[in-house]
Amino acid sequence: MNLILLFNQDFVNGTGRARLKGRRLEHVLRVHRARAGDDLKVGECGGKIGRGRIISLNEQCLEMDVALEEQAPPALPVTLAVALPRPPMLKRVLLCASAMGVKRILLFHSSRVEKSFWKSPALSKAAIHEQLVLGLEQACDTVLPDVRLFTLFKPFVEDELAVIARGMRAFVGHPGATQPCPGNIKEPATLVIGPEGGFIPFEIDLLVSKGFVPINIGKRILRVETAVPAFLSKMFY
Amino acid sequence: MNLILLFNQDFVNGTGRARLKGRRLEHVLRVHRARAGDDLKVGECGGKIGRGRIISLNEQCLEMDVALEEQAPPALPVTLAVALPRPPMLKRVLLCASAMGVKRILLFHSSRVEKSFWKSPALSKAAIHEQLVLGLEQACDTVLPDVRLFTLFKPFVEDELAVIARGMRAFVGHPGATQPCPGNIKEPATLVIGPEGGFIPFEIDLLVSKGFVPINIGKRILRVETAVPAFLSKMFY
Repeated sequence: MNLILLFNQDFVNGTGRARLKGRRLEHVLRVHRARAGDDLKVGECGGKIGRGRIISLNEQCLEMDVALEEQAPPALPVTLAVALPRPPMLKRVLLCASAMGVKRILLFHSSRVEKSFWKSPALSKAAIHEQLVLGLEQACDTVLPDVRLFTLFKPFVEDELAVIARGMRAFVGHPGATQPCPGNIKEPATLVIGPEGGFIPFEIDLLVSKGFVPINIGKRILRVETAVPAFLSKMFY
Repeated sequence: MNLILLFNQDFVNGTGRARLKGRRLEHVLRVHRARAGDDLKVGECGGKIGRGRIISLNEQCLEMDVALEEQAPPALPVTLAVALPRPPMLKRVLLCASAMGVKRILLFHSSRVEKSFWKSPALSKAAIHEQLVLGLEQACDTVLPDVRLFTLFKPFVEDELAVIARGMRAFVGHPGATQPCPGNIKEPATLVIGPEGGFIPFEIDLLVSKGFVPINIGKRILRVETAVPAFLSKMFY
């Protein structure tokens, strides 16, 4: 936790005084080992970054006075669409994308996604929120990504992706692609990552027909949780 | 498992006939759902890649005739040194590095590595081997990386790293660095990644004194398991 993310309900009404309990207090006590008078790096969810000076802390509660000054780091200009991974991998992909600065994440069904994945508790609003917050806390960001779910492939591509990608660069990661992943992209782009086992031909053809350019990230087939940081880093970092 | 890695002991003495049991048989039965007559992508550990034609299979054993033709994919020209991560993350880092083509991995102690990590069963030879194999199977490679452990920071940097890095480009990932991670490196390089929480000043100074150039991968602080694919992709992919 390189930044403590603060929410509205953490602030004592209308003041710059915030109170922490639970997981964040635990972390400050056990990992930071902070004391009254110490400064902690904090950020307001959706807002600025600054310092919280600890007024008091014990095993039950921490109180701090918060001063926010800096802007959050810039977002990546990318819409990231990922075929729904198995639940433990989904958690890591959400955390990683959130940490790397992605602000729009679309999770979609495709032929090689197991239907049972859609019933996982990892897809609850609270579980998704948790991973996104962990990512922001890791990377010292404050702006939560927007995550949306699409359980039907064809309408997702035709009605959503095609509209989102209109007028911007659009790519689909595909191990069989001849074109390598481009580097140093500055303009907005959409990146689609398929499921373990890849897209079936109908799916890749539909994406190509909507303007998505197949790109590879080398000859090696990578896990989704490795492909996401590898593509994002090569394209935007 | 995009490739089934075969070891000496899988071959019926001196022939091209191989037998599988256990985890790999399970995977062929449950995931590939293969039958007699089908071809499976296989590779010989340390050797070539090819096809195994299934002669027979049942719940106990699979027999196949193996023909090896292709070379394994090229290795990355990198020595990757990582401060020992916590055990679950260590597993993912090993799998990821193995899949991405790293052939020399050095795990070392540093001030912010918890000493208990060195006692983890994840550091046993068998446990390390398992993750490396999973990485090769994922990426269709056959050449196992060499992994070495160093429990003392100073002698590691002075006696090992400084010698390994002599005459090649040498970098240390450091969130505070002003120089960004270079792209499109073709020549051999050494990349050092610190622990969660970063290096202490003495450590980064020692690395710099041995010729290691601090580089960042953007302004965001990434987890080790994200930083490894992000740096490797940006530098070599």
